Amino acid sequence: MFETGYGKLDAGPAELAQRAALGAVKDAGLGPRDIALVVLSNSMGGTLSGQDMVRAQVWLRGLGFGDTPMLNIENACAGGASAVYNAMLAVRAGIGPVLVVAVEKMFTGSRELTIDALERGMPADLRGAYASRFEDAPSVLMGFNALWARQMIADGRATVQEIAAAAVKARRHASMNPVAQHRTPFSLEEVLNAPLVVDPLTRPMCSSFTDGACGVVLAPDDGRSPALRGAVVVSGDGTMDWHDRTAALASSLWTVTGLEAADVDVIEVHDVTAAEEIWTLEAIGLFAEGAAGAATVSGRTTFGGDGPLVNPSGGLIARGHPVGATGLAQIVEVTHHLRGTAGDRQQSGTRIGVTFNCGGITDGDASVMVATAIEAR
Amino acid sequence: MFETGYGKLDAGPAELAQRAALGAVKDAGLGPRDIALVVLSNSMGGTLSGQDMVRAQVWLRGLGFGDTPMLNIENACAGGASAVYNAMLAVRAGIGPVLVVAVEKMFTGSRELTIDALERGMPADLRGAYASRFEDAPSVLMGFNALWARQMIADGRATVQEIAAAAVKARRHASMNPVAQHRTPFSLEEVLNAPLVVDPLTRPMCSSFTDGACGVVLAPDDGRSPALRGAVVVSGDGTMDWHDRTAALASSLWTVTGLEAADVDVIEVHDVTAAEEIWTLEAIGLFAEGAAGAATVSGRTTFGGDGPLVNPSGGLIARGHPVGATGLAQIVEVTHHLRGTAGDRQQSGTRIGVTFNCGGITDGDASVMVATAIEAR
Repeated sequence: MFETGYGKLDAGPAELAQRAALGAVKDAGLGPRDIALVVLSNSMGGTLSGQDMVRAQVWLRGLGFGDTPMLNIENACAGGASAVYNAMLAVRAGIGPVLVVAVEKMFTGSRELTIDALERGMPADLRGAYASRFEDAPSVLMGFNALWARQMIADGRATVQEIAAAAVKARRHASMNPVAQHRTPFSLEEVLNAPLVVDPLTRPMCSSFTDGACGVVLAPDDGRSPALRGAVVVSGDGTMDWHDRTAALASSLWTVTGLEAADVDVIEVHDVTAAEEIWTLEAIGLFAEGAAGAATVSGRTTFGGDGPLVNPSGGLIARGHPVGATGLAQIVEVTHHLRGTAGDRQQSGTRIGVTFNCGGITDGDASVMVATAIEAR
Repeated sequence: MFETGYGKLDAGPAELAQRAALGAVKDAGLGPRDIALVVLSNSMGGTLSGQDMVRAQVWLRGLGFGDTPMLNIENACAGGASAVYNAMLAVRAGIGPVLVVAVEKMFTGSRELTIDALERGMPADLRGAYASRFEDAPSVLMGFNALWARQMIADGRATVQEIAAAAVKARRHASMNPVAQHRTPFSLEEVLNAPLVVDPLTRPMCSSFTDGACGVVLAPDDGRSPALRGAVVVSGDGTMDWHDRTAALASSLWTVTGLEAADVDVIEVHDVTAAEEIWTLEAIGLFAEGAAGAATVSGRTTFGGDGPLVNPSGGLIARGHPVGATGLAQIVEVTHHLRGTAGDRQQSGTRIGVTFNCGGITDGDASVMVATAIEAR
């Protein structure tokens, strides 16, 4: 495994992908020639880097992979975990070792271009309708998130203070993660008093642009490394509310793996906002409805708490959200904990790690979600 | 299996993808809810349709696939067969039935935009160097192809008349294929006297823009349907000449499948030009060096010939070359022959079909090639 670090970086997507690829191969004790298949996830390289096709072949050329087959996988913000799902199928089919590389370069000098690229993840024919629905928000994505946050507050399921507490935790976790983007700890007051993105969400409650790449090598079970117990992908077709689908996804993961919510020791969830962390923890059954906020405030989801350790990396809002790489970054973080290589963030007795990675910036239509479960050996 | 037909079509990529998806599912005797995984190949939808992300989820929404997992695969002109390779791994891993949809919409009203989109398949950092190398050609792609054709002629391996004969054959085959793009038969004189694209290649010797989509369903072996004996993907890293790598790819295919060149009854090769058909037939060992041209002229590679039946669909230059869909169209055509559903193009005793699908528009750097072998049951 390897992470380049996340944030506003000087390197372009090719250099980031190369660092992640070589770093992951080396960490696995292998060389490029040992890799049987490369799966690369990237979502924005067409618009932002002018590379619409064969990104893996182009960005990783000259590194010594020879004629190793390469597949480019795209699944928006869920691309990273989708690539791991695909690699898992390949390993089960007898192909391995499989290198998964996930990379995104979002800072290009033009904020408008990056927002345009993000919005090209929405259905082209619905873009206008979504944009007009959320004229008060800086983006459709944050419009939806604000709507959900307001609904959660109106229903009495969480308070703004509880949402802010999740952001405080994320910043504190990120301050202990050397590769995280936003490493300055914030107090509850600082989070609450920060500039609004869209009511009730302030800036440190929201994910922002991030550059970065990471890589992992999947291989047949060696009996020693953390084992991918299972991965589940679902698409959203507009027939189910986003959070209900998240619950259905969790249910599928438990079925596929034989695990249950209570088994989870460490989890990375797709906190595109701090409010989403709280709602997701409830949707997937780690806390009862309305209980995740209080659990966050009382420290149950941080280091030393009695709940599952939630987003030790800092999550999307503090580790950073490099769109097509986020899902793989979650898997890297969880695997560090299961390996015992999480540094200052390590807790003892961590056996089962889970990730929830989501893509598609609508309320469920044309979206995609991926959940994975990994077990320590 | 299903094909929308290829050419300049009124429909957009979503409509084409939907027709192919529903057509293939119906042809398999299934409904959308029976599909366990969708793999979609498309290469140009970012630049040409403004849909950079989650194309499968967006274009296929509302068709009844429910929460079926969907993966988007991109591998330039080899995307169609790469998607089938990926689906084959999924089936081997126990996932099925898998729907593969491949779609491309190239006619958008702006020729310049489509050429720009095609060139965004080249490494961004090399685009200028390639363009200046081929100032006499209308595109870098055709520049390389003209170079190869001239080299083949200079080496005495083929004549312009032999290359033209491959184009005459392609047009005749396409005239018998109801879904082909260029169905008007041409005489040898008409091919030779047509406008030059770049010396020595005239227009009917070259592939052109194409819209179209196709779909297939892969499932565990039922003992009756044609069986995918194997698929091989290789990437080009600049260390090997394009045609030498084609030979290496064929060698891998024979190793993986236990077949040999002499077993091939029907084959679809990546004739981005008529000259490439001839060179490919030699590179993969179906004819000795310098013999494929004469075999083409004497009718050995057409209906009733004693050689393998080559590009019965009309190939890229006459069936059409819808970039990310081409490799799947090849597989559909070959499978029709193995099923006995090739209509006027059917020959008896067809047992082994092979396809060669290539992507990347350089001389081997950052390219990708996919070969598949399919067996009748």
